[in-house]
Amino acid sequence: MSDMHDTRSIAGWFAGPKGENAEWFSRVIARVVDDYYAWRRNYFPEDGVTVDSALRRANEPFRDAFEDRLIELLARLKGDFPFQSPRYAAHMLSEQSLPAIAGYFAAMLYNPNNVSSEAAPVTVRLELEAASMLAAMVGYGPGHWSHLTSGGTVANIEALWVARSVKYLPLLVREVRAALGLGDGGMSADPRVLLGLSPRNALEAYASLAAEATARYAHEAGAKLARAVGEATHNVGERGLASLCAAIGSDPVLLVPESHHYCFEKAMDVLGMGRRSLVCVGVDETFRMRVDDLAARLDEIDARGRHVLAVVAVVGSTEEGAVDPVDKIVALREERERSGKASFWLHADGAYGGYLRTVTIPARCGLGSPVSRVRVGGVELEIPLRLPEHAECSALERLGECDSVTIDPHKLGYVPYPAGAICFRSNLVKPLVRQVAPYLEEAPEDLDAERASDRVGVYILEGSKPGAAAAAVWLSHSLIPLDTHGHGRLIRETIRNACELHSLLERLPTMVDGLSTRCVPLCAPGSNIVCFAFRPEMQGTDLAAINKANRTIYERFSMDPGERVYDQSFFVSRTTLSAHQYAPATVKGFLSRLGVSNEEYVREGIFLLRSVLMNPWYDQAKQRGRFFLSELAQSLYNAADEAFTPSR
Amino acid sequence: MSDMHDTRSIAGWFAGPKGENAEWFSRVIARVVDDYYAWRRNYFPEDGVTVDSALRRANEPFRDAFEDRLIELLARLKGDFPFQSPRYAAHMLSEQSLPAIAGYFAAMLYNPNNVSSEAAPVTVRLELEAASMLAAMVGYGPGHWSHLTSGGTVANIEALWVARSVKYLPLLVREVRAALGLGDGGMSADPRVLLGLSPRNALEAYASLAAEATARYAHEAGAKLARAVGEATHNVGERGLASLCAAIGSDPVLLVPESHHYCFEKAMDVLGMGRRSLVCVGVDETFRMRVDDLAARLDEIDARGRHVLAVVAVVGSTEEGAVDPVDKIVALREERERSGKASFWLHADGAYGGYLRTVTIPARCGLGSPVSRVRVGGVELEIPLRLPEHAECSALERLGECDSVTIDPHKLGYVPYPAGAICFRSNLVKPLVRQVAPYLEEAPEDLDAERASDRVGVYILEGSKPGAAAAAVWLSHSLIPLDTHGHGRLIRETIRNACELHSLLERLPTMVDGLSTRCVPLCAPGSNIVCFAFRPEMQGTDLAAINKANRTIYERFSMDPGERVYDQSFFVSRTTLSAHQYAPATVKGFLSRLGVSNEEYVREGIFLLRSVLMNPWYDQAKQRGRFFLSELAQSLYNAADEAFTPSR
Repeated sequence: MSDMHDTRSIAGWFAGPKGENAEWFSRVIARVVDDYYAWRRNYFPEDGVTVDSALRRANEPFRDAFEDRLIELLARLKGDFPFQSPRYAAHMLSEQSLPAIAGYFAAMLYNPNNVSSEAAPVTVRLELEAASMLAAMVGYGPGHWSHLTSGGTVANIEALWVARSVKYLPLLVREVRAALGLGDGGMSADPRVLLGLSPRNALEAYASLAAEATARYAHEAGAKLARAVGEATHNVGERGLASLCAAIGSDPVLLVPESHHYCFEKAMDVLGMGRRSLVCVGVDETFRMRVDDLAARLDEIDARGRHVLAVVAVVGSTEEGAVDPVDKIVALREERERSGKASFWLHADGAYGGYLRTVTIPARCGLGSPVSRVRVGGVELEIPLRLPEHAECSALERLGECDSVTIDPHKLGYVPYPAGAICFRSNLVKPLVRQVAPYLEEAPEDLDAERASDRVGVYILEGSKPGAAAAAVWLSHSLIPLDTHGHGRLIRETIRNACELHSLLERLPTMVDGLSTRCVPLCAPGSNIVCFAFRPEMQGTDLAAINKANRTIYERFSMDPGERVYDQSFFVSRTTLSAHQYAPATVKGFLSRLGVSNEEYVREGIFLLRSVLMNPWYDQAKQRGRFFLSELAQSLYNAADEAFTPSR
Repeated sequence: MSDMHDTRSIAGWFAGPKGENAEWFSRVIARVVDDYYAWRRNYFPEDGVTVDSALRRANEPFRDAFEDRLIELLARLKGDFPFQSPRYAAHMLSEQSLPAIAGYFAAMLYNPNNVSSEAAPVTVRLELEAASMLAAMVGYGPGHWSHLTSGGTVANIEALWVARSVKYLPLLVREVRAALGLGDGGMSADPRVLLGLSPRNALEAYASLAAEATARYAHEAGAKLARAVGEATHNVGERGLASLCAAIGSDPVLLVPESHHYCFEKAMDVLGMGRRSLVCVGVDETFRMRVDDLAARLDEIDARGRHVLAVVAVVGSTEEGAVDPVDKIVALREERERSGKASFWLHADGAYGGYLRTVTIPARCGLGSPVSRVRVGGVELEIPLRLPEHAECSALERLGECDSVTIDPHKLGYVPYPAGAICFRSNLVKPLVRQVAPYLEEAPEDLDAERASDRVGVYILEGSKPGAAAAAVWLSHSLIPLDTHGHGRLIRETIRNACELHSLLERLPTMVDGLSTRCVPLCAPGSNIVCFAFRPEMQGTDLAAINKANRTIYERFSMDPGERVYDQSFFVSRTTLSAHQYAPATVKGFLSRLGVSNEEYVREGIFLLRSVLMNPWYDQAKQRGRFFLSELAQSLYNAADEAFTPSR
């Protein structure tokens, strides 16, 4: 096994399923606490004590109440899920890295507010450093604009908000050029052409407008530009969408794959564009966007006189872990641009899967051996793995050509909540969203470049936000680098584990006698998530009965509020495959393997079991003789056999 | 001094300016860490060790790197501001309560995701309990819908998003009634009338539509209703704003006072309504919304054929701490409804000032003695305070009649970031924003009431979010109750301190000989923020010179990145008073006291110094002979005298 495939180093990054690293880590935390309060004492020590011993004694009743209530809280928290255990293979939750926890906690004691370096001189800088690590992972150059958010939903909304501003920017620029007597600058008078400009050209047109205005009007340029931009009819931020759409006689559409996250519907509602303006592009049987269908939809939208706000590629779908073919979407866009068709803003929703990119940095490392060791019925043996690789890597390697990418450190970054991020390819978007807050930073012209580069709050959707999240991401990623020697090891392991579970679920009946059910995986994992359903050995059971049995299995592998976590030996999650989301043609193969008809599918939808394989411990546990995925698979089959057995 | 005005109990709630309670608190944190990792060991103890001693030793290089990098982080963090010190009177930052820190940290180790009780069975419940404490503070009854957010900006955007759905609800209901053959239910056919319905009536019309549909169509009602709602022309969430505004021939307007937070411009942009649809209502000389001007604007909007999306009352403005007269706005709305004029959604932005309400629960406690002890030039004496009281209390006591209220626990709640909250008066808004996520909760009909009440994620703007924030708010507010005996003590102190600083700044020249400058406060504090500017003793200096000198003072009382916090003895923040925000008439009195002309104001704007008096330690420090606010005032005057002295 090459060093790069060694999972032993991962064991230092986390506390361990039994808190094996906790004794050491608790000393780290104690040191953080001591260091922080020593800092308090070192600030004007001569101020002396304020809360003296007598006062501390007087407040003992509060301390007593505090301790009692804290014990109550700690007791309640014990009802939480054991995300750290290899027995938990359910939602997108697992260990958090020790550096991330320590970084969060250390900065939380200082409680900086990253809305402004005036309230967070240190952590704003850490946020920009951390966001630059993410941007570098994506493949962006130094001209990017990236920052942290509270999570992926807000990051996606912010991306679409910015995409909208850029979409209408050419119309705005042309209008402002005319108002300032700067000619048309070679821009077409046809709004259709302007709406079809590439994001890059749109931003460049804006940049050269500013440059030409400065050349013509010198120090008056700023004021003249601000006035003309403010008065422009095609300023969507000022005038709103209703006015703009009325002016151009066309409505925006957002293209997303069928596998998109539900936050895009919400985003369309919030942004005032309407859920109905979300158009779904079909996916293939592995749940990756079909680029032929995307091309067809784009042409259709053009033909209908509407215009495309953006195309969203999903990098790591929430349910299947599928990675859309970003490379092919980029190629389609280039081809359309060459043939004079409308370009589009390409946003990658990598909230879940952005970190998959680490297995390709600095170059693809491969996912390791195509077999995996398992133990079934007391016997150790090797089973083959269907590893994803080429298509996903090709997609990930072109992420840097997307105009914006959402990435959630609090998912595959193994950083505690809240830590989302949005990266924009070009920092020319910054002036489009700039806010002015009288009590925060000065106007840019008042500041030297050093300080200006430290400003975050005026360019983001949110306001106040924890500097602690920045310290968490910064400390974790600077210790566990975002490449094949660092974070990539972990990501590779999670993918291998998903493939192992997938393979086990498919093959177990060939390895163990007497199983009366079959597990039907939805598809081979595109990354590290597996969806599946059980059916009786013989096909022909109706879907309602299949759903009922799988729901029963789910109940065995989950916990209701009030149930005791200590009694629950394995966890999986569940989802629903529904014709509202996926056309029957998309899931044809799965329906046939499950033995259910299109009609049943359309009528009932399919209840699926789902495992997210984020846990970092499977391989190390194997080294010590525990095969948790083999146990999980066996345990699921046992539950399935029971669930499908008619009750006596 | 009555028990209620005793500040001694406050001393138990926080770590203390020198970490006086830290030794005890660090034991609390250590206990939390031990308790958490013991929980890991207690989950299937028989699974045994995964990271064994040999593996731990093998990972010592990582531990070494971790410790080194952590020391670097801790070193960098020491450049942060000493929010805990009474020397810090700048931005909205101070101590955080010890229960809040412990609660956050304890739950952070478990890392629950409050998007769903499937990922956070404990902290979702804590969030709903904590949000109910806030709703009770606001004055809402049991039918409210309240939850935490990442902060005030997102809370305000969510409130406006919901307000928009409710605004167009009567149009939707009437259309759906017709489609389902339910008659008009007494609803007018005139869209102007429907747009003028009160939020309460709009929500009731929706509720009775659902009830009538159920009565008519029994178990088919749900599907029929969903289809009709989905197809309706007047469904703003589905169809978008452009389509809806075109259909009704009228655009929405948002009314905010001149003192509103800048996030409302951003919100209008994001929501697609356009910044220009924000209409500012004038404020009086204490920066509270003028209700006569609000009435005039409402009539004007009616006359122009536009409609009001919502009216925002600011409870604790960011710059002045002013509290809008919610009581009078509520009265105006009632009067308009009685006289057949259009009603409106009333949103209170109490992100900063929502907690001011605690001084009125269960009843107004008064703000204490109208004098305060100070020490100037070595002499202790009493100075009079201009305490806000009646108007602000009357406003706060009517908060419960607003349709939505934003409150940030991470501001005056003394809870670490991120902790915002949004409270809606009626939980009938929930179905309007409901999302469906296949892998999260089931449809409501599948769930019993107990579990349904635990669902959060499908009704909010955000997605994944830290359960830790819920534990922080819950633990803090359950130990320090939101009333005059608990949190209100602290709030009262902060208001008294602002009034003391205000009084000191006004009077110091009458108490100390030889000062050649005068401090001109913007207005008497409406709560706990003071804004002010210095001028030479004799009026007549031009505004440019005044601004320059005040900027010089600010630089003395702030810290650039790279400067050392240990060298900085006091902190204030700054803001700009600008004619873009406040009409010259509004600030007439201030301009005259400062001795500058309208023209200068309009041309240059005024650079103001600003102190947020959130620090809890001033009174206790006085008990021990330290008068920090007296020192701050004197120190500001010294800096002003220097700044205005021509350099030799």
